[in-house]
Amino acid sequence: MIRIERDSLGELSIPKDAYYGIHALRAKENFSVTGQPPHRELIWAMAIVKKACAWVNREIGMLENSKAEAILKACDELAVGNLDGQIIVDALSGGAGTTLNMNINEVIANRALELMGFEKGIYDVIHPLLHINLNQSTNDVFPTAVKTAIVRLLRELADEVALLQGEFQKKEKEYAKILKVGRTELQDAVPVTVGQEFSAWAEALNRDWWRLNKAVERVRQVSLGGTAVGTGLNCPKIFIDMAIEKLREFTGLPLAKAENLFEATQNTDSLSEVSGYLKTLASDLIKIASDLRFLSSGPKAGIGELRLPAVQVGSSIMPGKVNPVIPEMVTQVGIKVIVSDHAVSFACSMGNLELNPFLPLIAHELIGSLKMLKSCSTLFRERCISEITVDEARCRELFDRSSCIITAFSPYLGYEVCAEIYKEALSTGKRVEEILIERGFFTKEEIESITQPQELTTPGFAGIKYLRRLLK
Amino acid sequence: MIRIERDSLGELSIPKDAYYGIHALRAKENFSVTGQPPHRELIWAMAIVKKACAWVNREIGMLENSKAEAILKACDELAVGNLDGQIIVDALSGGAGTTLNMNINEVIANRALELMGFEKGIYDVIHPLLHINLNQSTNDVFPTAVKTAIVRLLRELADEVALLQGEFQKKEKEYAKILKVGRTELQDAVPVTVGQEFSAWAEALNRDWWRLNKAVERVRQVSLGGTAVGTGLNCPKIFIDMAIEKLREFTGLPLAKAENLFEATQNTDSLSEVSGYLKTLASDLIKIASDLRFLSSGPKAGIGELRLPAVQVGSSIMPGKVNPVIPEMVTQVGIKVIVSDHAVSFACSMGNLELNPFLPLIAHELIGSLKMLKSCSTLFRERCISEITVDEARCRELFDRSSCIITAFSPYLGYEVCAEIYKEALSTGKRVEEILIERGFFTKEEIESITQPQELTTPGFAGIKYLRRLLK
Amino acid sequence: MIRIERDSLGELSIPKDAYYGIHALRAKENFSVTGQPPHRELIWAMAIVKKACAWVNREIGMLENSKAEAILKACDELAVGNLDGQIIVDALSGGAGTTLNMNINEVIANRALELMGFEKGIYDVIHPLLHINLNQSTNDVFPTAVKTAIVRLLRELADEVALLQGEFQKKEKEYAKILKVGRTELQDAVPVTVGQEFSAWAEALNRDWWRLNKAVERVRQVSLGGTAVGTGLNCPKIFIDMAIEKLREFTGLPLAKAENLFEATQNTDSLSEVSGYLKTLASDLIKIASDLRFLSSGPKAGIGELRLPAVQVGSSIMPGKVNPVIPEMVTQVGIKVIVSDHAVSFACSMGNLELNPFLPLIAHELIGSLKMLKSCSTLFRERCISEITVDEARCRELFDRSSCIITAFSPYLGYEVCAEIYKEALSTGKRVEEILIERGFFTKEEIESITQPQELTTPGFAGIKYLRRLLK
Amino acid sequence: MIRIERDSLGELSIPKDAYYGIHALRAKENFSVTGQPPHRELIWAMAIVKKACAWVNREIGMLENSKAEAILKACDELAVGNLDGQIIVDALSGGAGTTLNMNINEVIANRALELMGFEKGIYDVIHPLLHINLNQSTNDVFPTAVKTAIVRLLRELADEVALLQGEFQKKEKEYAKILKVGRTELQDAVPVTVGQEFSAWAEALNRDWWRLNKAVERVRQVSLGGTAVGTGLNCPKIFIDMAIEKLREFTGLPLAKAENLFEATQNTDSLSEVSGYLKTLASDLIKIASDLRFLSSGPKAGIGELRLPAVQVGSSIMPGKVNPVIPEMVTQVGIKVIVSDHAVSFACSMGNLELNPFLPLIAHELIGSLKMLKSCSTLFRERCISEITVDEARCRELFDRSSCIITAFSPYLGYEVCAEIYKEALSTGKRVEEILIERGFFTKEEIESITQPQELTTPGFAGIKYLRRLLK
Repeated sequence: MIRIERDSLGELSIPKDAYYGIHALRAKENFSVTGQPPHRELIWAMAIVKKACAWVNREIGMLENSKAEAILKACDELAVGNLDGQIIVDALSGGAGTTLNMNINEVIANRALELMGFEKGIYDVIHPLLHINLNQSTNDVFPTAVKTAIVRLLRELADEVALLQGEFQKKEKEYAKILKVGRTELQDAVPVTVGQEFSAWAEALNRDWWRLNKAVERVRQVSLGGTAVGTGLNCPKIFIDMAIEKLREFTGLPLAKAENLFEATQNTDSLSEVSGYLKTLASDLIKIASDLRFLSSGPKAGIGELRLPAVQVGSSIMPGKVNPVIPEMVTQVGIKVIVSDHAVSFACSMGNLELNPFLPLIAHELIGSLKMLKSCSTLFRERCISEITVDEARCRELFDRSSCIITAFSPYLGYEVCAEIYKEALSTGKRVEEILIERGFFTKEEIESITQPQELTTPGFAGIKYLRRLLK
Repeated sequence: MIRIERDSLGELSIPKDAYYGIHALRAKENFSVTGQPPHRELIWAMAIVKKACAWVNREIGMLENSKAEAILKACDELAVGNLDGQIIVDALSGGAGTTLNMNINEVIANRALELMGFEKGIYDVIHPLLHINLNQSTNDVFPTAVKTAIVRLLRELADEVALLQGEFQKKEKEYAKILKVGRTELQDAVPVTVGQEFSAWAEALNRDWWRLNKAVERVRQVSLGGTAVGTGLNCPKIFIDMAIEKLREFTGLPLAKAENLFEATQNTDSLSEVSGYLKTLASDLIKIASDLRFLSSGPKAGIGELRLPAVQVGSSIMPGKVNPVIPEMVTQVGIKVIVSDHAVSFACSMGNLELNPFLPLIAHELIGSLKMLKSCSTLFRERCISEITVDEARCRELFDRSSCIITAFSPYLGYEVCAEIYKEALSTGKRVEEILIERGFFTKEEIESITQPQELTTPGFAGIKYLRRLLK
Repeated sequence: MIRIERDSLGELSIPKDAYYGIHALRAKENFSVTGQPPHRELIWAMAIVKKACAWVNREIGMLENSKAEAILKACDELAVGNLDGQIIVDALSGGAGTTLNMNINEVIANRALELMGFEKGIYDVIHPLLHINLNQSTNDVFPTAVKTAIVRLLRELADEVALLQGEFQKKEKEYAKILKVGRTELQDAVPVTVGQEFSAWAEALNRDWWRLNKAVERVRQVSLGGTAVGTGLNCPKIFIDMAIEKLREFTGLPLAKAENLFEATQNTDSLSEVSGYLKTLASDLIKIASDLRFLSSGPKAGIGELRLPAVQVGSSIMPGKVNPVIPEMVTQVGIKVIVSDHAVSFACSMGNLELNPFLPLIAHELIGSLKMLKSCSTLFRERCISEITVDEARCRELFDRSSCIITAFSPYLGYEVCAEIYKEALSTGKRVEEILIERGFFTKEEIESITQPQELTTPGFAGIKYLRRLLK
Repeated sequence: MIRIERDSLGELSIPKDAYYGIHALRAKENFSVTGQPPHRELIWAMAIVKKACAWVNREIGMLENSKAEAILKACDELAVGNLDGQIIVDALSGGAGTTLNMNINEVIANRALELMGFEKGIYDVIHPLLHINLNQSTNDVFPTAVKTAIVRLLRELADEVALLQGEFQKKEKEYAKILKVGRTELQDAVPVTVGQEFSAWAEALNRDWWRLNKAVERVRQVSLGGTAVGTGLNCPKIFIDMAIEKLREFTGLPLAKAENLFEATQNTDSLSEVSGYLKTLASDLIKIASDLRFLSSGPKAGIGELRLPAVQVGSSIMPGKVNPVIPEMVTQVGIKVIVSDHAVSFACSMGNLELNPFLPLIAHELIGSLKMLKSCSTLFRERCISEITVDEARCRELFDRSSCIITAFSPYLGYEVCAEIYKEALSTGKRVEEILIERGFFTKEEIESITQPQELTTPGFAGIKYLRRLLK
């Protein structure tokens, strides 16, 4: 059972029960290249933008109430995902978004027709362009929807990052006093606390959270009403402000009208900027994952200071093996986000005059990165960070073995003497404390005052207050 | 209806009709991050590798015939796609491939059990590890499957690239004699033929075809039999050669055993190399697409030398607009492939010791690029190149207007005189030929002999033979 | 003439008049890999940091006045560039900055010795570590200097970007009323003004300027006083605040102490963020340069709406050729900046625990990008944008030829009728206005009211007010 | 003291003793953007190309002998570096190479004039274009020189990579029998030998060496004689073959004429391909450097299986610290090469029609990468790999502690029993061997036969031959 649809290039048979039409079908044939549909969030945003436009078109008397009712309902259904199967175009279609816009227009029109009791395809009654696309152009609708989806995801991601940060801060408090060897360039350096290490991971995420919030300010300015090139040709002035106001209302997102619709139609720098924040978050996640992989290496022939939760069996051939699979997943997501940022950078640079024809790619990469980072943050938190435990005995063992406290004695004994003691410790295996006492440099109490965690891991000469008191 | 499965971490409820098991279910929960499953081609390759292993295990007496029969059949079903819904793990799972391998083992085991008339989950009879994974480790099976999938796709892509090249060559012949202005740095330069432009596009693709064929030689060396780290521990020597031989037979692909299984298990440089070929193809495609977009710009206020076929309506607001949507799609695919190469490069560099934990990412990106390039090549050929037409009148108009023939007279009149004539042509709008005759430098015949397409677009002084003859 | 210096690895001969010492010489031999020295701006920043430290060390009584005087003077000389030839280490040296710090310490020590009347190398008097590096560690000094250099360059770059933006805005005003065809996807679309095109370029740069200013806030927090891992071990508390205060005073830059010195020592996310702003600016510059290359293509067989100034002869073989060489340079710089951002992203992700060993690379790329963007902005403005002219006649010719005004009549005549008229215009070469009058749709006055630049290029139905008046 | 030079844009004052002329001076002012000159190797190649052309022009009677003699001599001087200070143009100049070509032409002309006893600037006698650039265009000369430089550097780099590989192979032999724990995903896995680890590093480099050699075949095809767009307009046919023949002779490199000069002028895919080989080498180097950093971590609180030579003192604040500075440098170089490849990929994709205007960037990045990789390989070999030592006791300690031999007993005892023994070993700290004997599973001799290095690290069931013999 088919119906016939026509456009200026000819006619095509459409399955009778399809909500999509001839434009979508042509596009599907033209662009079946990734096999991936546009992101759900983008379809949602397109539906809401269409709804806002239809609402305003009714308000300003350009759309009959009966049709508007049906269209608004169709938009709602599309927004919640009930018609996703009818969005048949590829995520990387050419046409600067026209392809998706046409598909959306057709689906809404046909669903509205159906709701009004008409057969699909009776475009005399409701037309994909004349009614659904009324006072719009792909070039204002599509970028507006892209930004709407991004603003929503930025908020959701920010929430997840805050939770992840919180989890690191719990560990920071929990292990605030546990001493361990600090390492620079992977070599034994000076004392730190386990809590400090967690604090460093948390703090980077804190800034990431802040960046994501700032990012909303960058992309909330939309160009709805700009039509073909942003000049607003053929779009009633009254429509513009009302449509953006409705969009803000329907989404609950802080969207605003761009000051210069013309430039907002062609420039994509705010998307490049936001993408830059995402790659920074990705870098932070990779760094943290890499630290966790290093610190949990072993269990016996590695560092072993941290123990990651065992979330799945590690090997079919080696009994008892558990691998850092969550940090590995995090790293892979991080790499993908970083190179997606790169795709965004280049695609942004390749805009031409009044439009960037590669906005579908930019949108797909950016929304994809936001979604991946979001689920990645959740999984990282729930399946790894929240259940990390610290092997305190191992921390202490390596701390002692490393002789990393020697630097704390340098202000009292000088660099040369300390270097000599350090060498003795390395070669004999004796503890630094032991040698210091043997040689009569310090008493046990003095050493204890110097090697308090608080003294060793905060600014100043370790133990100086105590030692001064003694001297008095 | 559920069944209970157990592993060393505890137990989980599995839907009774599920072919996957506890390992896959844990992994699904751990890694739901991209929402994308592993590529179909990778599942196919895993199934075939498992089949080859099972076959050999039967041959060498380590697997009973009745079980082997069921397993081989299950592998076949998985290979053709009948069990894809049971592969529930995310494409970017951590675990260096273990996750997918476990999912595959479970699905084959349970389907084999079913074929033998048992309930799913009766692992006493057929066990995912003891039977399906027998004599294997993820670390040899997974990389072997990755390379198998890549070799297959390289061949398929090479075929498509050859067809695309052929289409350009058709146009090359068709327009071999049509003169047009050549442009360097987008500025009018010297005469070329339209055919030459098509030849340049074809020739780059020709080298790409050759590269893809060479690439097969790089990745055909597999490490099956190396087990955990490539040393082959616990893998019977007889198994190794037989398994690879069977894999070659079952796939029809020129696979071979790596000389040093140990290094082949950890090094991924051949994948990085192949990825480099793909990004080079992508660069070529973007360059061609960019040329087509420039040459077909207009229709009236642009270059307009080429006309791309109209494959869909271009605008909802502007009547009659047709856009270069296929080249735009090609460009977007090209950008993705180039940045995927980058992900591959970095992931390859991040290998650790005896294994690269990020091989799932590498495989996903590389296989994704191969598939996208393949469909992109097909669509580019069928929906754009094969139907390109040349506007010969427009080519001639711009050719004449450009005065680009002036350089051909330079050997006869000198650079200075030519520069003067060129300036006159630009300012007056007269044709260069006209001025040359007016000033009495050449006769009409002489000019015609100099400006023959063949003379203007091949090495040497244009018209020199004819003019020499005259002089005699 | 040589002197002998010793370290724990042995001894080396140093040229007697060299200010560098044994550490720098070893490093030079270890790392001669790029042939590029650290950036001048980084050397300046290191010198100023050292000066601030020396000043404070004197204030707090840890450095004798006579030595401090000499050291401060030596720092000044190094800051202004008088000792650059003595900085012999490679920009990409290993050691997380230790290499450069050691070279700097040695040069300052030896120059200070010289100023005090001593031979170079008399480290008993002034020692590179004990005096110049007093209360410091590479791991706080080097990142502090990197950020100091970046803050300075961000400000300088922002100034240049503002000037460039201003130049575009001049053109925006100058050509505010000139109509031209707008193009989307390089195809003729609807009317715009030349001024609008300049406004779009200016507006992106305006946001870039704003980003650069914001960027300063991100990197102004320095970790001086954190010593080896940011815990501040062995650094007197009083030193920390005073040193940063002095650094702020000596540089005039708004530097501040990081709240958590420990995390500030290892995290580089703020550098990744700033790098993201630079790549966004680079994308904008490439986009603008690409538009300019397209619009100035020709002179006769291209678009030719804009004329770039001829800044050099274009060809040795083709008389009169002028190329868009400045936009080409801008594009090349843009590509470099974008890939440098990528190097920064990855290097940031590769930090390990308490330190990022690849900070020298990050610093070198980031400072290099800042400098390139700065000179690139200046050259772009002075040698291209300020002297661009618009070929108004050509704009009008293409405008008329494109029939791009047809969309403006759509609200009055409907899409269908307009499409028909457009086709007639394309096929006959007649102007749209002509056909409209012929067919009796509009009078000449009505058409004029509709096709006013202001009407065609701002929101609403073109000419609606005038036509409404008529109807009354 | 100045002289005045003129071009079509006007006149400029040139320092009297300058060999460069007006074109170079304009270019210097236009493009002072990176502060970096073109690479020495590129200047050498340009000089040799010019020499070959001058030689042929003399041979075919288009250049007087006296002038040719002087020009050839000037080319030689430029080739060896005597005139480098006169190459004043920036590496990233616009103009697709014209800028450098003009500078080169002027320097050769003026030096030749000087050699003939004329003042500089007397271009009536020897003219930069009419004599030095005779029968050439930038568009054939510059790409030819770029490829010439690359072929030379590819060979030099291949030699260095071979030496580096050889050094790894020496270590492979030296430590062939030393057992150590193998690690996958940084977790303890199964036994390997230290020699095997070195063999894996060597083998990747072996393939890199092979790739570099293959790469020569890709870029040896040059387009000299193609002139402006590769059609060879105005270039005598006889010149083309002779010039390439002479170039081959003068350089000793296997250069050849491209089959299709037209396409060879615009396509840069072979450069993208070669760049792909370099990034693969870079990935390998980063991976190796990362392994070395991990394995040499410590000295006491890390892995410590390897000891890198101490090539410089590691810290100013921590006595005795030695860092993996050479691997850190290698990593930084690797990152740069990988992102340079990316710049090459994108610049290649941005070619326009008959020419790629961004070839200067491509050349600069590619030649830069080749040079960096070359010196990096030398330094890596001389200052790190050749002096690496293995801490055999530490390898043994971790080997025993890891219980990694347990997998070898799996074929005899089954997976379950082994898992139980492994757990006991982990919790009690007992050695696996001990438990096996205690429980009566094996005798000491049997265990010894199973745990021979050869048995544990090659395919098959460890000790199977010996145990079979016993059973008989």
